[in-house]
Amino acid sequence: MRAEILSIGTELLLGQIVDTNANFLAQQLPTLGLDLYYVSQIGDNLQRLRDAIRRGLERSDVIICSGGVGPTEDDLTREAIADVLGETPTVQPELEKQLREFFTRRGRTMPARNVKQATTIPSGTYLPNPIGTAPGWWVERDGKIIVAMPGVPHEMHKMWEEQAQPRLAKLISGGVIFSRTLKLAGIGESHAEEALGDLTHSTNPTLATYAKSDGIHLRLTAKAATQQEAERQLEAFEPRVKERVADWVYGGESDSFPAVVGAILRERGLKLAVAESATGGQLASLITEAPGASDYFVAGYVVYSAEAKRALGVSPEVLREHGTVAEATTQALAAGARQASGANVSIATTGNAGPDASEDKPVGLLHIVVDIGGRQVCQETRYSTTRTEYKRRGAQEALYLLWRELKRAA
Amino acid sequence: MRAEILSIGTELLLGQIVDTNANFLAQQLPTLGLDLYYVSQIGDNLQRLRDAIRRGLERSDVIICSGGVGPTEDDLTREAIADVLGETPTVQPELEKQLREFFTRRGRTMPARNVKQATTIPSGTYLPNPIGTAPGWWVERDGKIIVAMPGVPHEMHKMWEEQAQPRLAKLISGGVIFSRTLKLAGIGESHAEEALGDLTHSTNPTLATYAKSDGIHLRLTAKAATQQEAERQLEAFEPRVKERVADWVYGGESDSFPAVVGAILRERGLKLAVAESATGGQLASLITEAPGASDYFVAGYVVYSAEAKRALGVSPEVLREHGTVAEATTQALAAGARQASGANVSIATTGNAGPDASEDKPVGLLHIVVDIGGRQVCQETRYSTTRTEYKRRGAQEALYLLWRELKRAA
Repeated sequence: MRAEILSIGTELLLGQIVDTNANFLAQQLPTLGLDLYYVSQIGDNLQRLRDAIRRGLERSDVIICSGGVGPTEDDLTREAIADVLGETPTVQPELEKQLREFFTRRGRTMPARNVKQATTIPSGTYLPNPIGTAPGWWVERDGKIIVAMPGVPHEMHKMWEEQAQPRLAKLISGGVIFSRTLKLAGIGESHAEEALGDLTHSTNPTLATYAKSDGIHLRLTAKAATQQEAERQLEAFEPRVKERVADWVYGGESDSFPAVVGAILRERGLKLAVAESATGGQLASLITEAPGASDYFVAGYVVYSAEAKRALGVSPEVLREHGTVAEATTQALAAGARQASGANVSIATTGNAGPDASEDKPVGLLHIVVDIGGRQVCQETRYSTTRTEYKRRGAQEALYLLWRELKRAA
Repeated sequence: MRAEILSIGTELLLGQIVDTNANFLAQQLPTLGLDLYYVSQIGDNLQRLRDAIRRGLERSDVIICSGGVGPTEDDLTREAIADVLGETPTVQPELEKQLREFFTRRGRTMPARNVKQATTIPSGTYLPNPIGTAPGWWVERDGKIIVAMPGVPHEMHKMWEEQAQPRLAKLISGGVIFSRTLKLAGIGESHAEEALGDLTHSTNPTLATYAKSDGIHLRLTAKAATQQEAERQLEAFEPRVKERVADWVYGGESDSFPAVVGAILRERGLKLAVAESATGGQLASLITEAPGASDYFVAGYVVYSAEAKRALGVSPEVLREHGTVAEATTQALAAGARQASGANVSIATTGNAGPDASEDKPVGLLHIVVDIGGRQVCQETRYSTTRTEYKRRGAQEALYLLWRELKRAA
């Protein structure tokens, strides 16, 4: 069945709020077996709301609205639904009584205009709102369903979970969609797709790639008659996917890359230190995203000045001969960080995050050195991006190199 | 003129990402004099994309798309626009050359499929993307405009600001809306609104507050017949706003807080060092967001272990008596960072970023010490948030404290 989401409120079109309701609902629909094809944000305008609902009834089976069910003149969701269906809202005495009691409990009198919140239409019924004054609507007509819920996120979430979702689940029979995520580090989206090859054309299960801030996410999705059958399909598909991207897969949905790398260090009893020039603290900050990082991360040095580099053991000769941005300098920093902190593993970075060239070193250049007990691996990369992104991607890449070398050393 | 936003990508319909692009663009349109009536999220499906573009051309003057301009088979925005307009995309040799160079600079070969990113149609031209591989499209036909930009937010923001917005501004005549932004640090949104009082009800110019990752932004917007008149209105309004939030205003639209603090240090010839436990490198990373930070930022120490704290001069007695999370320990770290690095100004942090309590210190506790030439100021704060947010806000607060003390010392 096809579902459609309408997020209603002029504040969305003015950019005053981000539409997190659509995101919440979008995540909920696959488990109900609903295919979501359309999401729209509509202002508080009766004509445009009517158009959106009419179009929704033509192309979708289920329309899920949030917003526009308050008591003010701007709240027009009920009016638009009633108009499109050609039905007249009438006050439900039982609901009106509940609303009045809600105000009485708070020591207030219900304003006259709130009475419109106590209405329903012949094809509909109301959805109670135990934590607010705006009840929802559940409308069934000609095989189509319209759900209208409040726009306030915590009220909508509760009404969805307690009222709308169970009603939808009961109505919808047939197949389910089940998904699983794999996360990759150290590879870009295009190269990941090339490595996956024909698997990206698989129709059931499907395989989709997403570039995220913590790497590439692969989403494996199976459609089947039952949850068990869908899970079984994924069990068979996942190893085929993993085989093609084995070098880069670090975990699933709930895994974070810093925690995955940290777990290896913890398990092997290794202690880590970093010496950062180019990444300016971003690498230490990435490493300390993992709870319990103090188990293995002993010290970070942000060596922004030549003086700080010398203090960590980079010799005046190396600095004079190679400059502050150079492979030899980065190697000396990695060794220095390890020795100064007593760690057995270290990472060092030097480079130029921009925006201006310095020491004739081009903007975007980054040297990374990983040092495991004195064995060093060097990498030189060039980024064409902002200073912030340079630091973020450089830190990711540096941690990826450490992870790769730790796996090789296993 | 009517504008419409299309956010393109199946990941939006699967709820994997929140559509912050539509929110960013919605905030930008009023200053161009564009009325936004429709926002939609569309999946990576050629038929539905074509329908959305066709409908957009019927009901809007300007269609602004983000997403779907990557190199993969799922990226169909270009194809859909060309189909609807009945035009054929052809490769632009100059653009293809630029794309190949982008890959060469990173020491990689451009995958064959990326060639489709080098195409345009007869009614269109491309918008350069200096920080990514996905160029945008600018299409003008029959008095309508279609803009297609990448979905990656920082690439889209840059392309909007440098390419799309100026082109639109040039095309759109008539009354103007002119805005100016003031940025605040060290204050929350509610308190900022309290301080601003009745000014938030002003109708022209208007005053709106937004909570952003780098502090509270105040948006002052004037409507007038000419740009000059709108600017004149803002010239009169701005001082009245600034007066109420004088303690927290650090700059305008193009100012970044790290650069503002850095400019003071540079001007006074001061050298800065930091010693971070709780903020784990995030404070150094924040400071090094400012280009040229090496002028004044000499060294950062991420002292995650007790050993690293001792190495920076925290005495065993202080650690034994107060623990690793304590005001006295933070004071010793601030003094130690200054002395070890030769800096005259320092900041130190200790605390518990969570998720678990340690040493009986509650989750969310943060000690900050700012040390200016030996004069120390201490602050204790409690955050109820995630580990990532704790580090981010803690680093912001620490830098705010330094800024406040530098201003007081002036």
